[in-house]
Amino acid sequence: MSTIDNAFDAETLRVLGHRLVDRLADHLRDSRENLEMPVLPWAEPDVSIANWPGDFPAGPDPDPAAFDALLGRVIDGSTHLHHPRFVGHQVTSPLPTAALAEFAGAMLNNGMAIYEMGPVATAMERAVIRWMCDRIGYGNEAGGLLTSGGSVGNLTALLAARQSHAGFDAWTGGASAGPPLAVLSSDQTHYCVQRAVQIMGWGSDGVVAVPVDERFRMRPELLEDAFGRAEGLGRRVVAVVASAASTSTGAYDPLDRVADFCERRGLWLHVDGAHGAAAAISPKYGQLVDGIERADSVVWDAHKMLLMPALVTAVLFRDGARSYESFAQQASYLFEGRDPSEEWFNGATRTLECTKRMMSLELYSTLAVHGTDMFSEYVTGTYDLARSFASLIAASHDFELAVEPDANIVCFRFVGDGLVEDTDLDALQDRLRSRVNASGRFYFVRTALPKGVFLRVTVINPATTGDDLALLLDAIREAAE
Amino acid sequence: MSTIDNAFDAETLRVLGHRLVDRLADHLRDSRENLEMPVLPWAEPDVSIANWPGDFPAGPDPDPAAFDALLGRVIDGSTHLHHPRFVGHQVTSPLPTAALAEFAGAMLNNGMAIYEMGPVATAMERAVIRWMCDRIGYGNEAGGLLTSGGSVGNLTALLAARQSHAGFDAWTGGASAGPPLAVLSSDQTHYCVQRAVQIMGWGSDGVVAVPVDERFRMRPELLEDAFGRAEGLGRRVVAVVASAASTSTGAYDPLDRVADFCERRGLWLHVDGAHGAAAAISPKYGQLVDGIERADSVVWDAHKMLLMPALVTAVLFRDGARSYESFAQQASYLFEGRDPSEEWFNGATRTLECTKRMMSLELYSTLAVHGTDMFSEYVTGTYDLARSFASLIAASHDFELAVEPDANIVCFRFVGDGLVEDTDLDALQDRLRSRVNASGRFYFVRTALPKGVFLRVTVINPATTGDDLALLLDAIREAAE
Repeated sequence: MSTIDNAFDAETLRVLGHRLVDRLADHLRDSRENLEMPVLPWAEPDVSIANWPGDFPAGPDPDPAAFDALLGRVIDGSTHLHHPRFVGHQVTSPLPTAALAEFAGAMLNNGMAIYEMGPVATAMERAVIRWMCDRIGYGNEAGGLLTSGGSVGNLTALLAARQSHAGFDAWTGGASAGPPLAVLSSDQTHYCVQRAVQIMGWGSDGVVAVPVDERFRMRPELLEDAFGRAEGLGRRVVAVVASAASTSTGAYDPLDRVADFCERRGLWLHVDGAHGAAAAISPKYGQLVDGIERADSVVWDAHKMLLMPALVTAVLFRDGARSYESFAQQASYLFEGRDPSEEWFNGATRTLECTKRMMSLELYSTLAVHGTDMFSEYVTGTYDLARSFASLIAASHDFELAVEPDANIVCFRFVGDGLVEDTDLDALQDRLRSRVNASGRFYFVRTALPKGVFLRVTVINPATTGDDLALLLDAIREAAE
Repeated sequence: MSTIDNAFDAETLRVLGHRLVDRLADHLRDSRENLEMPVLPWAEPDVSIANWPGDFPAGPDPDPAAFDALLGRVIDGSTHLHHPRFVGHQVTSPLPTAALAEFAGAMLNNGMAIYEMGPVATAMERAVIRWMCDRIGYGNEAGGLLTSGGSVGNLTALLAARQSHAGFDAWTGGASAGPPLAVLSSDQTHYCVQRAVQIMGWGSDGVVAVPVDERFRMRPELLEDAFGRAEGLGRRVVAVVASAASTSTGAYDPLDRVADFCERRGLWLHVDGAHGAAAAISPKYGQLVDGIERADSVVWDAHKMLLMPALVTAVLFRDGARSYESFAQQASYLFEGRDPSEEWFNGATRTLECTKRMMSLELYSTLAVHGTDMFSEYVTGTYDLARSFASLIAASHDFELAVEPDANIVCFRFVGDGLVEDTDLDALQDRLRSRVNASGRFYFVRTALPKGVFLRVTVINPATTGDDLALLLDAIREAAE
C-alpha cells in the first residue's frame, strides 16, 4: 500500500483511534483523580522548542506506534485542564462528549460556507443559536451565527453596529464617507474590542472610556459625559459595549441602565458576554444579566462557560436580519447571486470565515444528550464556589481580596503578616505565582489592577472544590516562606 | 454519580470513544470503497431543520447509547468528503491522523493565547511555521503564525501591510490620519480580500482591479495603470494582493513580475496562497509559485492542500518582525506589559484570536509521522489529474473547457451536440449540477465566469481517480437527456 493509501486506511484509523481513546481516557482519569500529578509540566519555551524540532522526515516513520507515542508525549507535556487545580484562564475543561463530537467533525470536515457543504451542522447551528437567543430573552425575530472565537465575534457584531448606526454606508463608502466613529466602553472591556475598533480604522480614540466603580462595573451615569467627550473629539458614537462580565475581575456592567442610555441616545448596545452571558441559564445568577435582552447584539463563548473545547462563539442579534449587515457582499461561486437574507442556510454571508468548522455539532450533541440542567447547575456551582473562595480570602489576614466577585473569577493578593510591608507587593505576587505554578501543584494567573498586581483564579473546572482552593492559599503561603 | 460527574467519567469516554472510532473507521472504509454510497444525502434546509430540532431536554438522555446514535445520524447525514466522487469545494478529505490529533487537542484544550496555556502547541506552531517558510523560500528572518482560516489570515496580513505602508500610524491614528488607502488586485481574488479591505474601512473602492488575461491570471503590465487609477481616485496604494491560485479557476498570478512592480513602487506584496501555495512542495509544479519568496506576506491554508481538517491557516511574513504590526496592543492579564517581539511564544500578540485551538498539533504530528514526501506527492498527483481531466474535456465534443488549469481546479460546461444550441446554457449547467448532486453520485460545484455559468471540479481527495472523473462526465450527459 502506498504511504497515502495507508494514511487513509480505515483499519489503521481503527487501531490508532482505539489507542488514543484509551490514552485520553486514562489521562482524564488521572487528571481528575491523581492530585499528585502536576497541573502543568512547566518547561521554558527553549526547552519546548528542543522537544519539538521541525526537521520532518521525507518518508513515513517505520514504527507503527510512532503516532501513538507522539500523542502520548503531547498529552504529557500539555497543561492539564481537567485537573481540579487548574484554576487559570477562562478556558474550560472540555466535556469529553464535546471532544468526541469535534473528532467526528474533524473527520467529516463539512466546511459550512454554504448549506451543501454542511447540511447537518447548519441545521444544528440554527437550533443552538435559537436556544441561546431564548436563554437571553430574545424574541422570535432574533438570530445569529457561530464563529471562531470571541475576538472575531466582537468584530462581527461591531461591523453590524457600524453599518447600522454610522449614519452613512461605511461598508461601501469607507471611513472617509463620514465622521470618525467611536464606541463607549469601560477600560475593563476585553482588549479585543479595542482591537476590533482599530482594525476598522477608528484609531485608538475609537474607544472612549467610561469610568468604572470600585467593583469594576461601568458607571452608567457617566455615559452621557463620555458621549459628550466623544463628540468633543469630533467622533460620532455608534455603540456602547458593555461587559458581562469583564475579563480581569469578572465584573458585570449594569446592562439595564446602559440599555436605557442607548435607547435615549439611539445607540447600538453590544454586550460582550463571552464569559458571562452563561449566567442567563442559571436561575440563581440570571439577574446578573438583567437587560441583556435589550442588547442589539451579544457575544457568548460556548468554550468558556458551556464546557466546549475552543473555539465555539455565538454572535446573537436581537433583530436577526442585522446579522446580514456585517459583510454586505457576494461571491458568485458560493452564493449564486441571490439575496443573502433569503439564504440563512448559506452561512458564509454572515460569518468572517468562509470555510468554517462544524462547531455546532459539539454544542448541539452535548445539550441533547446531557440535558440543559447540567449546564445551568455548572454555572451556578462555579459562581457559588467563587463566592465562598472570596469569603475565605476575606477572612484570611494574610490575603487581600481585590473585589467581591460577580462571576467565577476571583482576584486577590498575598500581603503576609506585616513582615512583607516594605516589600514590592507586585513583584512578590509574580514571584509567588511563578513558584507555585512551576511546582505543578496549581495553575493560576495574574492581572494588573489600579492597586497593583493581583493573583487571579477562574473556577471553571467542575471538578474543582473548596478544598482545592483552600490548599491553593496554603501553597502560596508556603511559597512565600 | 451526578450528571456532570458522569459526563466527565473516564470509563464513559472510553466506551463512547471506542464506539465512535469504529463508526468513523467504518464510514471511512465505506466512503472510500463503496461507490454505491451517495456522496451527499441531499436534504432541503427545511428537512434538515426538522431532523435536528432545538428542543433540548432538561435532564440527561436515559439511553446510554443516545450519544452514539446521534453521531451515527450526523455521519449519515453529512457530505462525505472521503468519497472519491467528492470533487466539490476546496475543502479536503482530511487525514484520519489529523482528525485524531484534533480529538486530542479538543480534550487537552490548551488555548495558546499565551505560552503557559499551550507549551507544546506553541513549540509545534513554531516548527510548522518554520517548515512552511522554508518551503516557499523565505530566509531565516521569516516568521508567522497559525490562525482560524484564510479570511482571518488575509485580514491579518493586510493589517500588517496597512501599518507598514500607509505612511501614517493607521493603527493608532485611524483612517482619518491619512488619505484613503487601497490595494491592487485582480477581480479573480477571493472575496475575503475585498471583505478585509471593507472591514478596515477603505470602502468598496479600496480594491482597485487589475485586469486578467484569458487564463484569469493578473496582467502585471497593467499594474501601473491600476496604480494610476487608484491615485486618480485620491487613494494611497499600500499593497498588491496576488492570488496563488485564484478561487474560481485556480489561476496563478505571475508572482515574479508582480514582485518586480511592488519593488519598483515600494509596495507590500501579499500573496493569497490559501489554496495553491502548496505547489511549493511539489518538485513538478513548484515553478507556479516562482517569486513567492519575494512576497512580504503569504497566506497558506493547511486545510486545503495539506490534508488538514478545517481550519488551519498559516500567515507567513518574509520579515517575521512584521507579524507584530497587525495588532500593536497589550493586555495586562496576558502579556505582563513586555515588548511583544521578545515574546514570540505568547501567540495572541500576533493572532486575531485570543484563545486559539491547538491547530499546530494536527499539522506537526502528521508531517512527523507520514513524512513530507506524501504531501508533495499528493499535490503533484491532484494537479496531474486535473490536467488529464481537462484534456479529456477538451477532447469531448459535448463539453467545453473554460481554461487550461494551472492548479487542481477544472471549470467546464456541458454544451451538448448542437441540440442545445438555443438553450439557456447558464440555466442548463445549474440544472445539471442540481440533478447529478441530488442523485448522490457526485458532488461538484459551479462558478460564474465572463462567458457564463460553468461547472467546477476540485480534485482534492487523493482517492479520486481519472475513472471517477470520466464517469462524472457521463453522469452529466445522462442528466442532460
